[in-house]
Amino acid sequence: MPHNELRKDYLLDRWVVIATERGRRPTDFAKKEKPQAKVGVCPFCPGNEHLTPPAVLAYIEAGGKIEKVKDEDGFRHKGWVIRCFPNLYPAFTPPQEKADKWEIAEGGDLAPAFGHHEVLVESPNHDEHPSDASIPQLLHVVNAYLDRLVELASKPYVRYVSIFRNHGLEAGASLSHAHSQIIATPFVPKIVEEELQASERFWLEKGECIFCNIIKRERESPRFITENQDFVAFAPWASANPMEFWIFPKRHMHTPLEITENEKLNLAKILKTCFSALKSLLNDPPYNYGFHLSLDEKTRQYYHWHLEVYPKLAIWAGFEKSTGIYINTVSPENAAESLRKAISP
Amino acid sequence: MPHNELRKDYLLDRWVVIATERGRRPTDFAKKEKPQAKVGVCPFCPGNEHLTPPAVLAYIEAGGKIEKVKDEDGFRHKGWVIRCFPNLYPAFTPPQEKADKWEIAEGGDLAPAFGHHEVLVESPNHDEHPSDASIPQLLHVVNAYLDRLVELASKPYVRYVSIFRNHGLEAGASLSHAHSQIIATPFVPKIVEEELQASERFWLEKGECIFCNIIKRERESPRFITENQDFVAFAPWASANPMEFWIFPKRHMHTPLEITENEKLNLAKILKTCFSALKSLLNDPPYNYGFHLSLDEKTRQYYHWHLEVYPKLAIWAGFEKSTGIYINTVSPENAAESLRKAISP
Repeated sequence: MPHNELRKDYLLDRWVVIATERGRRPTDFAKKEKPQAKVGVCPFCPGNEHLTPPAVLAYIEAGGKIEKVKDEDGFRHKGWVIRCFPNLYPAFTPPQEKADKWEIAEGGDLAPAFGHHEVLVESPNHDEHPSDASIPQLLHVVNAYLDRLVELASKPYVRYVSIFRNHGLEAGASLSHAHSQIIATPFVPKIVEEELQASERFWLEKGECIFCNIIKRERESPRFITENQDFVAFAPWASANPMEFWIFPKRHMHTPLEITENEKLNLAKILKTCFSALKSLLNDPPYNYGFHLSLDEKTRQYYHWHLEVYPKLAIWAGFEKSTGIYINTVSPENAAESLRKAISP
Repeated sequence: MPHNELRKDYLLDRWVVIATERGRRPTDFAKKEKPQAKVGVCPFCPGNEHLTPPAVLAYIEAGGKIEKVKDEDGFRHKGWVIRCFPNLYPAFTPPQEKADKWEIAEGGDLAPAFGHHEVLVESPNHDEHPSDASIPQLLHVVNAYLDRLVELASKPYVRYVSIFRNHGLEAGASLSHAHSQIIATPFVPKIVEEELQASERFWLEKGECIFCNIIKRERESPRFITENQDFVAFAPWASANPMEFWIFPKRHMHTPLEITENEKLNLAKILKTCFSALKSLLNDPPYNYGFHLSLDEKTRQYYHWHLEVYPKLAIWAGFEKSTGIYINTVSPENAAESLRKAISP
């Protein structure tokens, strides 16, 4: 009996068992029937803007140009191509008084959840998910992510901005209209903090960005999926999720705020390529994605922003939750091969 | 607008938002219909022993006494009250040769997944889950956990033994027959390792077991749920899951291997009390549980074994997975109050 492999993440102290004994092929995870979100009036569709809080940002297309607007005084802009507003049930909310103390005491175990929690509707078309969106529309999404990132990162009580997407009811999307969420937090989240510390150590030891090093290696590895001029996608060595993949800018940048116009376009393109492949391969599976980035100038030399995509094909159960060790039944090498074939059949 | 609370775990660097804005009551999580595991021949039911690997341990009741037996040479014992056997698709497997190297190299990122992965069928009765089991049957379960723990902990390549339970399809139980799983690993898992380090620090600073300290405080807090002579149950301060609760032995012990006969009985009793309450309150919700324990004599003074129970009422989505910050929509104080009322209406 061959043994399964235990693999450690590039940076995190996170071990994963690649448990291929069961011999599941990626396509075994394609579901014929999926639970659907309740059908009814979609609060994110055009015409229903009054069902959501006022937009903090909307893109209106006029004469081939994008005008950036805000809803004010009960008025709701119509005819938008992107619309971003506070979550109706925000996990994080801004301090009410300028004088509110927002530093979390060292060693403390309680703090107000200061920050922001927003919904970014990615298209007026209900089903225009990244797998099916036009490149110009995806470029609007990328631009809107960056606009909100600039705005939220400028708040004195914000230390991190998480941009993430839940797709499908099983991945936590209670509404099926194409949308992302943005949460600004008063501290750097644990997973990103661990990446920052590990990448700083590597940089101090080797004088190199560990992520640049990973990109170089994975472009040549069986975990490579696809690339364009500015971005590369691969299945990470110690994927905790079946079919997990990461998208990295080739150029070293700690924050997506330094992205060029051409890089934005190529990000839109690689998103479309990867999510089209995932959808066709697995019958539009549920997934989550989240950007990892740094807002701290001090991390410029060693951190490298990227996007992590977690298809939701398995359930983290008692073992995973109580130990922090993950069991993944699809090797990243198999995942990458399937995605490569779905991209270039 | 009141702000949500950000709370940090007692030991782990894990922050949770207690997001009560949505005003969900615990009973809002009770589902009328639940997805069910496929019905068919149950390989765990008596008579179907040939569908599973040979038992490494079975309890046979004879004349009021328990005889402990093993299946050998293709023979399968019948008439068992507890039956434990290797998982048909093991994540971890024992080394084949005594000479196999099982130490994970410092700084390494690859190792064979040496260990064990077993299924422990908790009763010959398909539906005899802890919520409905007789106390004598639950006592058999506790005894069998301990028997397997002794055996697996004695292997030279085993550093940790995780005893866990998945209940309900949505919590990862693909078979509905009452069962637990046991995984022996070649290293101490990250979450337990972090608890060990934090509890050692506390002990060095304060000369006290941090868990004994927590028990003392939570017995008097609004998060208290129930207790008996030897065990106490409470909802943890920074619960990452709605309705999460933990069960602790009152006596300081780093390992359950030191439990007394009377404590075993009281563990069986508090399991029954808590899981009956959870079932009646939330219409038999899916859940996971996992024991946290130490096998290292050096940790005797500062570690304190316990059981953590995670009802599966929410989905960890893009934010949780990419940041390690959790959003919990039921405060542990509300959770504890509901469970207290379900126990003593």
